[in-house]
Amino acid sequence: MSLGSAIDALRAGRFVLVHDDAGRENEVDMVIAAEHIEPKHVESMRTSAGGLLCLAIGYDIAAKLGLVYLHEMIAGMGKVNPIFSRITQGKAAYGDRPSFSIPVNHRDTFTGITDKDRALTISSMARVCKNIDSGGIEEFATNFRAPGHVPLLIASKGLLQERRGHTELCIYLMLLAGMTPAVAICEMMDSETYGSLSVDKAADLAAKNSMPLVDAKEIRASARVV
Amino acid sequence: MSLGSAIDALRAGRFVLVHDDAGRENEVDMVIAAEHIEPKHVESMRTSAGGLLCLAIGYDIAAKLGLVYLHEMIAGMGKVNPIFSRITQGKAAYGDRPSFSIPVNHRDTFTGITDKDRALTISSMARVCKNIDSGGIEEFATNFRAPGHVPLLIASKGLLQERRGHTELCIYLMLLAGMTPAVAICEMMDSETYGSLSVDKAADLAAKNSMPLVDAKEIRASARVV
Repeated sequence: MSLGSAIDALRAGRFVLVHDDAGRENEVDMVIAAEHIEPKHVESMRTSAGGLLCLAIGYDIAAKLGLVYLHEMIAGMGKVNPIFSRITQGKAAYGDRPSFSIPVNHRDTFTGITDKDRALTISSMARVCKNIDSGGIEEFATNFRAPGHVPLLIASKGLLQERRGHTELCIYLMLLAGMTPAVAICEMMDSETYGSLSVDKAADLAAKNSMPLVDAKEIRASARVV
Repeated sequence: MSLGSAIDALRAGRFVLVHDDAGRENEVDMVIAAEHIEPKHVESMRTSAGGLLCLAIGYDIAAKLGLVYLHEMIAGMGKVNPIFSRITQGKAAYGDRPSFSIPVNHRDTFTGITDKDRALTISSMARVCKNIDSGGIEEFATNFRAPGHVPLLIASKGLLQERRGHTELCIYLMLLAGMTPAVAICEMMDSETYGSLSVDKAADLAAKNSMPLVDAKEIRASARVV
């Protein structure tokens, strides 16, 4: 059962591939627990996946940090300039609001974008999330800077009841694994088609590299209540 | 002279490598004129460079669109939550404010992140910039959505007089080339060191692929007044 393998992999700091749904983005993301990320993992994600490397965090943690969705911030600028209201109208082609919040860097990064820098930002944010009720908020305010090079994603409040994107699927997986809900995700691209990597191609890659591939259906069917 | 080759390459829709300064980020970016970008170029940038693929635009165009720097937007949220004031304090390690504005997608994209989608967003934004005084503003308001997957960068008002980042260097190159100041840039990473690609390694790559490599010193020494 790939769900069990996925949970084992997340706990062990190994990659998991997550497919949302053929009726939604139909996209496979390369995923790793934020607390385990190292520079070599960032390198693998940018070369093997190639999308936007983001850090998804749970809704409650984001709320405690006072973070908001970027679309709310941009829409709020509509008071100053109506163009901001217009460009935030409607939903994406796959039917959801994006889950983007602000992009951040750890203050000890240099450019912010190298494999070392992004690994530092992501693993440090995992510590902020883990210690959210015991110093994490102060650590975030003191040690992070925005805007930076790692976009934060905020999972919906109702998680899979509310939105079924990679953000929610991966945060749900982290909770199933009993881990801090902070997870690095990157969309997988296809250099032959210039589109998203198909599920079939992702399955080949998963098999070759012993990475579990799990899909939304299997995740939602999980009997465990989170 | 590599400056002349760089200008020729930009006009022809070929890549140019731009090094800022050993005393600043000491980073090489892979650069192409936004108006010429195609899906294959996005693919090359994510596989050969590996950083954050951004679209830099000139200050005057950004002002006409009513765009602002993301650090100003985030700092403005400090009225709601003081944490936003704290994380926007100070400058990056290399001494400048980041030039990030909002990330955008063209409305005809699907996920927004594929090579095809990012090429559509970037080339369409080049058209907005080119026609900024003849319908470009309305085209932006109608056909773009935020937040999306292509971060916009705004060049400083005083360009190289004010800031000497890749954003300004590349916009300056576009003006030297007599082209619309909209240029896609992506930082070059090194999979061996997990840091930035060194200038020496970039020079090897440039020679092998017949790409001009130009540095800040040569760009600033240009006698042409922009």
